[in-house]
Amino acid sequence: MEDERERQVYERGTDPTRVLALSDGVFAIILTLLVLEIHVPELGAGQKLGQALREIRPSLVAFLISFVVVAIAWAGHRDLFALIRRTDRGIVWLNFLYLLPLSILPFGAAMLATYERDPIALRIYGLILIAIVVTRLATWLYATRRSHILATPVDARARRGGIFLVALPGVAYLVGLAVADAAPTLAIWIYALVPVVYFVMIWVLRSSAPKSSVTEGFT
Amino acid sequence: MEDERERQVYERGTDPTRVLALSDGVFAIILTLLVLEIHVPELGAGQKLGQALREIRPSLVAFLISFVVVAIAWAGHRDLFALIRRTDRGIVWLNFLYLLPLSILPFGAAMLATYERDPIALRIYGLILIAIVVTRLATWLYATRRSHILATPVDARARRGGIFLVALPGVAYLVGLAVADAAPTLAIWIYALVPVVYFVMIWVLRSSAPKSSVTEGFT
Amino acid sequence: MEDERERQVYERGTDPTRVLALSDGVFAIILTLLVLEIHVPELGAGQKLGQALREIRPSLVAFLISFVVVAIAWAGHRDLFALIRRTDRGIVWLNFLYLLPLSILPFGAAMLATYERDPIALRIYGLILIAIVVTRLATWLYATRRSHILATPVDARARRGGIFLVALPGVAYLVGLAVADAAPTLAIWIYALVPVVYFVMIWVLRSSAPKSSVTEGFT
Amino acid sequence: MEDERERQVYERGTDPTRVLALSDGVFAIILTLLVLEIHVPELGAGQKLGQALREIRPSLVAFLISFVVVAIAWAGHRDLFALIRRTDRGIVWLNFLYLLPLSILPFGAAMLATYERDPIALRIYGLILIAIVVTRLATWLYATRRSHILATPVDARARRGGIFLVALPGVAYLVGLAVADAAPTLAIWIYALVPVVYFVMIWVLRSSAPKSSVTEGFT
Repeated sequence: MEDERERQVYERGTDPTRVLALSDGVFAIILTLLVLEIHVPELGAGQKLGQALREIRPSLVAFLISFVVVAIAWAGHRDLFALIRRTDRGIVWLNFLYLLPLSILPFGAAMLATYERDPIALRIYGLILIAIVVTRLATWLYATRRSHILATPVDARARRGGIFLVALPGVAYLVGLAVADAAPTLAIWIYALVPVVYFVMIWVLRSSAPKSSVTEGFT
Repeated sequence: MEDERERQVYERGTDPTRVLALSDGVFAIILTLLVLEIHVPELGAGQKLGQALREIRPSLVAFLISFVVVAIAWAGHRDLFALIRRTDRGIVWLNFLYLLPLSILPFGAAMLATYERDPIALRIYGLILIAIVVTRLATWLYATRRSHILATPVDARARRGGIFLVALPGVAYLVGLAVADAAPTLAIWIYALVPVVYFVMIWVLRSSAPKSSVTEGFT
Repeated sequence: MEDERERQVYERGTDPTRVLALSDGVFAIILTLLVLEIHVPELGAGQKLGQALREIRPSLVAFLISFVVVAIAWAGHRDLFALIRRTDRGIVWLNFLYLLPLSILPFGAAMLATYERDPIALRIYGLILIAIVVTRLATWLYATRRSHILATPVDARARRGGIFLVALPGVAYLVGLAVADAAPTLAIWIYALVPVVYFVMIWVLRSSAPKSSVTEGFT
Repeated sequence: MEDERERQVYERGTDPTRVLALSDGVFAIILTLLVLEIHVPELGAGQKLGQALREIRPSLVAFLISFVVVAIAWAGHRDLFALIRRTDRGIVWLNFLYLLPLSILPFGAAMLATYERDPIALRIYGLILIAIVVTRLATWLYATRRSHILATPVDARARRGGIFLVALPGVAYLVGLAVADAAPTLAIWIYALVPVVYFVMIWVLRSSAPKSSVTEGFT
């Protein structure tokens, strides 16, 4: 009886439901706040649609890149938490650490929309992207080693697959950051094309490890 | 035991709960962000309520049309996902593709509020509406063909009903887009009246196919 | 088998979960968007805290009144949906009709914050409050008559109690609206004090009908 | 049968699900709204990254402090509601009272970002922090005494632990508020370092009461 009660308190205190509710809320709001940085252009008399759209192009580019970044971050978050049955203090605070750079992303997008080819804006944006990668990696490393929070054990191979999946885009972002000064246009192209890298990555992981149900499940 | 574990990992990885949580969050935020485009009017001394309201009329119109667009988009999303038991990668990414134009809608509404009868604003708004229709149609076509994600099979008739329900408003939006230059007032009336078309459509589908529990369920 | 499947489709299509998720999202966002109307005051050199706070007083008053309005609207929504087991088309669209004036409330609050004692602002705010009352009343009248959506039947007495609970604050708002021109300060006091009326009302309903578990449950 | 129905109505009316959904929504939105106060800096020609970042430093500091405040407030809310099985009117309204200063926090952060070392801004921010502490304390005191809403009884020791955990940071905030005029830099350091106090506190509580599953569960 006493044990049963203790167990229930433990279950309630480690239930991931609210961590997911909060995180999904944060992801949803970032996705939709991004649009606030696309400002209504000042239309001159007789201006054509093409010209008006050309004016908002930088903010549209920043919006689209950021939208995809948040979407991938959410998909990765969902993939990870599909493996997690319980939360502990570490997971809760690492999760906040992951949501932190994501919450700053709309500011980075605003920088990019205002100073499209400026190395400073590109570096700030790149730093935010790398912070997302690093905190995601830290959460993955933390969670996959702790069997008491996992719904199913993650073997060494799947664990390396997850590291690879997160770290490689991170390396691409580092390159983008490094070339921001010398070749700003290249930097923005790198930021924009990393999702392609990510999708190829998942395809590779799925093909190379067809038996692992963990990497199989990556979205 | 091993199989049971694999099955659980599979179930957790394909559970639609978080896709719905994220989507409901996005819908809720768009619904409420729209109001930020209704700016407090500058009231002159001795101005009457009528005059003040007349000043905010364009943004109120843009708000109301957009509110109904989002409401219908949500109702359609709910109807579709009532049929879906599991998610796969395709559904997750098509869902993001659907949320994308919806997330841009507040910008379209701001354009419409600022340049009420301008063909450029009307065309941008129309393009967003058509993007919502196209991505919704793509999701419907994708989902209804994949029995492993459906909770119940969707027969050919119900499938065509769903296509019809989404495509017809799309055609109306195309007409609106086409006349935006020659008759801007007509375009805005078309955008505003499409929901009426939608509601009549559901009524027709329900009457013509009283036995199908799928079209029956359309909200 | 066929019947079981039909029943499941029906259950999934009428499940209120997503209606509540969307509504809770909308309520949460309105509650937090309201603060955006409290602007950082311009502090002069050597200005005291009291002076600074006096400057933001009108927006703080508008914030507080609106916060309580949304809180009560949410509590009423929760009380109603505690009685509802299934949704139908009517409930879904009435719910959107209820969320509509609530979504406009931040604009009304911004009007009140900018033109504190202006009859126009007071009337617009009053009209939004009355629209919230009317749509809430319509939802109550609709739901309590339809046994197929109720979790438990609502008897005539509880039904009248619910009408009373919603309509009386509505009458108070009408009075506020009526006196806005002649006595703007009185109008704002009425808007601010209606929650008190609401809480007394619930106390009366609980005392007069101690046996009804429905009014008993009003928050 | 009648009793069973009454019990179900009671269960539905006291189910905490929606209180948590609303609260998680509010927390998520505050976390993400905070970024709106970090404005894109005006970059002069040839300005370095360091300079640009120095310009946004005050708003970044306000953002980070507030993000941690909201994160801790959420963790405390989750810890408390892990103990709660049912809600009553008191809990619902105390919860709103708790969400109120949290909803005002973005305004406080904006004040701090604009008037970084100004005693007025520091005091307003401190007052909001203390209001969060006081309403959290009130909710804890209310809930832990009412066995009909608790999932498990909270003994006197765990109750005092909870009071201690909330009150001590409150005392630190009071000190910050008191020194805001004489030593504004110290005040901001106190606001920033209270989370450290909080984490040490939890560590002390866990060490001193290793058997209590309640304090054990504090995040």
